[in-house]
Amino acid sequence: VVCRGLYRALCIREKNMQQSLQRFPKTPSHYLRAIEGEPWKPSDAGPVFTPPVKDGQDPLDSGNLPEDLGYHVQMKDGVVYVYADKTAAERNEPKDLPYPSLKNFIDDMNFLLVLIAQGPVKTYTHRRLKFLSSKFQVHEMLNEMEEMKELKNNPHRDFYNCRKVDTHIHAAACMNQKHLLRFIKKSYHVDADRVVYNAKGKQLTMKQLFQQLKLHPYDLTVDSLDVHAGRQTFQRFDKFNDKYNPVGASELRDLYLKTENAINGEYFATIIKEVGSDLEDAKYQHTEPRLSIYGRSPEEWARLASWFNTHRVYSPNMKWMIQVPRIYDVFRSKNFLPHFGKMLEYIFVPVFEATINPQAHKELSVFLRHITGFDSVDDESKHSGHMFSTKSPKPEEWTSPKNPSYTYYIYYMYANILVLNNLRRQRGMNTFLFRPHCGEAGAITHLLAAFMTADNISHGLNLKKSPVLQYLYFLARIPIAMSPLSNNSLFLEYAKNPLLDFHQKGLMVSLSTDDPMQFHYTKVHPLMEEYAIAAQVFKLSTCDMCEIARNSVLQCGLSHEEKVKFLGENYQEDGPDGNDIRKTNVAQIRVAYRYETWCYELNLIAEGLKNE
Amino acid sequence: VVCRGLYRALCIREKNMQQSLQRFPKTPSHYLRAIEGEPWKPSDAGPVFTPPVKDGQDPLDSGNLPEDLGYHVQMKDGVVYVYADKTAAERNEPKDLPYPSLKNFIDDMNFLLVLIAQGPVKTYTHRRLKFLSSKFQVHEMLNEMEEMKELKNNPHRDFYNCRKVDTHIHAAACMNQKHLLRFIKKSYHVDADRVVYNAKGKQLTMKQLFQQLKLHPYDLTVDSLDVHAGRQTFQRFDKFNDKYNPVGASELRDLYLKTENAINGEYFATIIKEVGSDLEDAKYQHTEPRLSIYGRSPEEWARLASWFNTHRVYSPNMKWMIQVPRIYDVFRSKNFLPHFGKMLEYIFVPVFEATINPQAHKELSVFLRHITGFDSVDDESKHSGHMFSTKSPKPEEWTSPKNPSYTYYIYYMYANILVLNNLRRQRGMNTFLFRPHCGEAGAITHLLAAFMTADNISHGLNLKKSPVLQYLYFLARIPIAMSPLSNNSLFLEYAKNPLLDFHQKGLMVSLSTDDPMQFHYTKVHPLMEEYAIAAQVFKLSTCDMCEIARNSVLQCGLSHEEKVKFLGENYQEDGPDGNDIRKTNVAQIRVAYRYETWCYELNLIAEGLKNE
Repeated sequence: VVCRGLYRALCIREKNMQQSLQRFPKTPSHYLRAIEGEPWKPSDAGPVFTPPVKDGQDPLDSGNLPEDLGYHVQMKDGVVYVYADKTAAERNEPKDLPYPSLKNFIDDMNFLLVLIAQGPVKTYTHRRLKFLSSKFQVHEMLNEMEEMKELKNNPHRDFYNCRKVDTHIHAAACMNQKHLLRFIKKSYHVDADRVVYNAKGKQLTMKQLFQQLKLHPYDLTVDSLDVHAGRQTFQRFDKFNDKYNPVGASELRDLYLKTENAINGEYFATIIKEVGSDLEDAKYQHTEPRLSIYGRSPEEWARLASWFNTHRVYSPNMKWMIQVPRIYDVFRSKNFLPHFGKMLEYIFVPVFEATINPQAHKELSVFLRHITGFDSVDDESKHSGHMFSTKSPKPEEWTSPKNPSYTYYIYYMYANILVLNNLRRQRGMNTFLFRPHCGEAGAITHLLAAFMTADNISHGLNLKKSPVLQYLYFLARIPIAMSPLSNNSLFLEYAKNPLLDFHQKGLMVSLSTDDPMQFHYTKVHPLMEEYAIAAQVFKLSTCDMCEIARNSVLQCGLSHEEKVKFLGENYQEDGPDGNDIRKTNVAQIRVAYRYETWCYELNLIAEGLKNE
Repeated sequence: VVCRGLYRALCIREKNMQQSLQRFPKTPSHYLRAIEGEPWKPSDAGPVFTPPVKDGQDPLDSGNLPEDLGYHVQMKDGVVYVYADKTAAERNEPKDLPYPSLKNFIDDMNFLLVLIAQGPVKTYTHRRLKFLSSKFQVHEMLNEMEEMKELKNNPHRDFYNCRKVDTHIHAAACMNQKHLLRFIKKSYHVDADRVVYNAKGKQLTMKQLFQQLKLHPYDLTVDSLDVHAGRQTFQRFDKFNDKYNPVGASELRDLYLKTENAINGEYFATIIKEVGSDLEDAKYQHTEPRLSIYGRSPEEWARLASWFNTHRVYSPNMKWMIQVPRIYDVFRSKNFLPHFGKMLEYIFVPVFEATINPQAHKELSVFLRHITGFDSVDDESKHSGHMFSTKSPKPEEWTSPKNPSYTYYIYYMYANILVLNNLRRQRGMNTFLFRPHCGEAGAITHLLAAFMTADNISHGLNLKKSPVLQYLYFLARIPIAMSPLSNNSLFLEYAKNPLLDFHQKGLMVSLSTDDPMQFHYTKVHPLMEEYAIAAQVFKLSTCDMCEIARNSVLQCGLSHEEKVKFLGENYQEDGPDGNDIRKTNVAQIRVAYRYETWCYELNLIAEGLKNE
C-alpha cells in the first residue's frame, strides 16, 4: 500500500511537470515505466530557455520577433484560454492547447492529502529518511579522504572557480546595505537639484525631499539607514517588510528601490546594474533576481518592460524572475480589484497577448525573453481560513475581502503557466518555470501544492515536519533553494536549520541569499558569505560545497548552452555520467553514491509493487 | 574570606602589571586603595608605544637612535641582568632596575592556586557571574532600542567605519588560501628560472623545484594547495600544523612563508606587504601579525631584523609581535641547545644588547621600534609532567629532554620582559606587552599564570571551566582576543563558543582571525568574515559589534596617538567619560551599564572587607 501510494504520488508530479513543460528527472521516470511494464521513452516535454546572446548581438534587440497572430484571449474560471478570434470564444472553441483540469487536480490533491497523513506511509518514509542519514554518515567516514583526493588531483578547478547561482534573491534587496548607502550619498552628490519626487502633484528636488524628511545624506550611516534585519525581526515578518524602507521612509524606497517613480526607476536600475557588473567581474557567480508584478492594474507589465528596456537592465550574469505577492486582500480592501479573477487577468493576460502579438508588444516581448520563471511570495505564516476544493468559488466569483489560501493561489498560477508555456513553445519562445516560496512557515499543505505544481521551491524548511513529503522531494529530486541566514533572522536559528540534514539525506539543496540588503554584512559577494558561513557552521567539506554549487546551476534558469559550459556536456544525465569533475569539482565517488542511493530507494518501491 | 582572597588576587596582578610596565585599569586600583584606606595616586607605570611616523619621516630611519652605553648583560637563573661592566657582574652589582623575585612569584601563585579551588570562592564567583549574565539580559531587553536610537542619531559612524584590530594573527597565515595560491602562480610566471632553493648545497630554480615536487603551479588549486583546516583537524593540533605546508611540501612553506631561505624571505615579505596594502585600502582595519623567534640560535634576531629592514615590511595598518613557540624539547632532542637557559638567552639577550647599544645594532633597534609585544605559542593540550615550584630546576640546570611546563615558560618570559621594559623606558624606548596564547586547551593553571603576568591573552576558552578565574578576568578587565572560527576547526564547535557568554557578562573580548589561510573563505578581509559570522550566529547587535571593535583597539599595541584618533581623547578613562560615540559608535547607555556593573562588583568586595 505504501509503495502504491508513493508510486502514484510520483506519477502525479511527473504528469503535471510534463504538461506544464517543467522538469522531471529521467531516473524516476524509468522506474515508473518499469513498474507499469512499459518501455521508457525520452519525453520531449521540458522547459525552453533563451540561449545566451552571441557576440555582437544586442540582448534587447526586438528585430527578429515572430509575427502577430491576432488570436483572442479570454479568462474563464481563472485560466486564460486562447481562441482563434472573438467568435471562437463565443462558440467556446479554444485553440488546441492543453488546459488544466481543476477536477483532476483536486482529486490528486485529496489523494496526496490522505497519503501524507497515513500512519504506515509515515513510518515507512521516516525510516527510509533515517536510513539515508546514517548511510551518508557511513559514506563520509569511508570515502571522505578519497573524495578529497579526487578533488586535489583535479587541475584548475576549486570551490572558488566553480559556478554558483544565487537561486533566490529579491531585486529590491539584491545590493547590500553598504552599497545602498554609498549609492544614496553618491546620487545626492550629483543630483541634489534634480526633480526626483512627486508628492501629490508637487514636484520635489532631491534636496527638498531630504529636507522634508529632515535628513542630510551626508550624515546617513548604515545604522540610520536601518535596512538590516536585527533581533527585532525574528518571527516578525511584518517588521521585516518595513526594513525595505530606508530610514523608515517609504519615500526613499520609492526613489531608490522601485521601478515606477518620478525618475522612471532610474536609480533602481543603476544599482542593479552595479550589482550585475560586480558579478561579471567576479565571473563565477550568477544571480536570479525577482521583480514584482502585483496584478493590481493591466499596465504593470508594460511599465516594467519599458523600465527594463529603457535602462537596459541586462547582465549576462543575471536571469530574471517575476514574483507575485499574494496580497489580493490588500487590493480588494482598497477596491482596486472587483474579484480575484481580475488579479489573475492582470498578471497573465498581458503575457499571453505579448506571446500572440509580439510585434504589437515589442518591449514586453523582449523582456519576457529574459524572464525564466514565476515566484509566489508573501508571509506564509499568515493563515487563511479557506480550504481549496471543487466547491471553492471560481476566481471570478471570489469577491470576498478575504485572501484565498496558498494552494488556491498556487493552483491558478500553475494553471495559467501551463497554458502559457505550451503556447510559447508552439511559437518557438522560451517557457517559464514555477518556483514559488514554499515551506518557509505555515501549513505543510503548501509543500504538497508545490510538489504538484512547482519545478522547484525556495526555503522548504517545513519539510522537517512531514517525512512523507520530505521523502517525495527526495525521490523526485525537487531542488530547494535554502537561505539559512535569512531564516536565522526570521524563522529559525542558524544551527537548527535543516540544510545540513537535507543535504546529507540527498535532497537537492542549493544556497541563496534571499535579501542581501537585510541579512548580509560583507561588502562584496553576499553569496560567498552565505557559503562561507554554512561551511563553517555545518563543517561542510569542499566536495559538499561544490555539490551544492552544482545543484544551484542545475536548479536555475540558465540556458542549456550555459549549463553545458558550466557543468559539462552531459549535465542532463543523472548519476556520474552527468558529472564533469573538471567543471564542477564534485568527486565522482560522491555523485555515484548519490545516484546509487537514489536508485536503491526507487527500486524499493518497484520491488514493493512487484510483490503486490 | 572570599572578598579578602579576591582583593589579594587583584593586588597581585596590579603589582605585577605595574612592575612590568603593563596595564592595570584605574577603576579597580581606586577600589583597592579605598580598601586599604589609602588615597589613589595615578601610576606612572604603563606601556610606552612608538608614536606613528610623521609625514615625510621614514618609519625605518635609523638616524636618531640613542647612543651606545656599553653595559654588560648576563643571564642569571634564567633572567637577564644588566651591569655597568663585566667587573660589576663579577661583583654581582647589577644596575638599578626592578628584577623579579621568583620566591614572591611562587608564593603568589600558590596563594592563587588555593584560591581558585576554594569552595566558598567558587560558589561566590559562580553566583556573581550568573548574576552578571542575567543582568545583561535585562539590560538588553530594556535598553536595546534606546542603544539603537543613539547609534542611529550618531552621524557618519557605523560598524563599517569604526576601527577594528585583528588582535591575534600569525604572519605566516595572514593571507587567505586564495591569495597564497594566486601569489604562487604569479611568482612562477615571473621567476620560473630564478634560483630560489638550496637543497643540500644544490641550487634549484623555481622550475626545477616544482619539477622535483612533480607539480606545475598552473595546475594548482585551492584543493591541491590544501592549507585549509577541515574536519580532519578537529582536536588534532598536530595535523593542523601540517597545514602550514602548501601541497604538503615543506619546501613550499620554506619558499613562500619563511623569512630565511635562498631568496632571503622575499616572497614572504611581498605577500605580507600585499596584505598590508589591502588593509590600507580598507582603511578601518588594522592587524597585529606575529613573527617567530625560536630561541634556537643567537643570530635569529639579527636575521629577522635584516629581513624586516631589507624588504621594508612596513605598513601603517600593522603592528608587529614576536611569538616564541614552546618547543625547547624539540631543540634539545636535536642537541641544538644544552639547556633551557640557553633558549632564554637566545630569545632575550640580543634584545637587551640592542637596547643598550642601539648604534651597534641598528637594524634590530629599528625593528624593535615596530614590535609591540611578545606572544607564547604552541599546543596547550600537550601535558607537561612538571609542576613549577621553588624546587624546580633553574633554567640553566634544565638539561632534561622534557619540556618545561606552561607556567615555567610564562614566568621566565614575563621576568625577562619586566627587566627589559624598565631598561627600555629608561632609555626612552618603546616597551613590550606580554600577550600569550592561553586557555585554548590544557590546564586552567595556564590562565592563572597569565592572570599574574600577561597584559592580555589570546583564546581564553577555558575560563569556562573556572568561575574564580573568569570572575577575576572580569574584575581586572583583562582583554581576551577570541577566534571562534579557529576554535571551530580545532577545539570547540562554533555554537558552543563562550564568546557570547563572556561578552554578555562584561569580560573584555575582541575578535581575531588567528590563521586566515587555514580558516577563512572570503577573498578580502577575513576579519570582516569573523565579525559577520559572529554577528549572525550569536545575533549580535550593532552596538555589540562596535563594543567588541572598540575592545580590540583598547587591547592592541597601537600607539597612544592612534588610539586618541580612533577612540577619542579620553580613551584611557574607564566608563562613559572614556567613550567618544562619534568615533566608536558604541552607545553611551552601554558603556554606562558596563561601568556601573563593574563598579558594583568591585564595591561588593570593598563592602565585604569593611564588615570584616
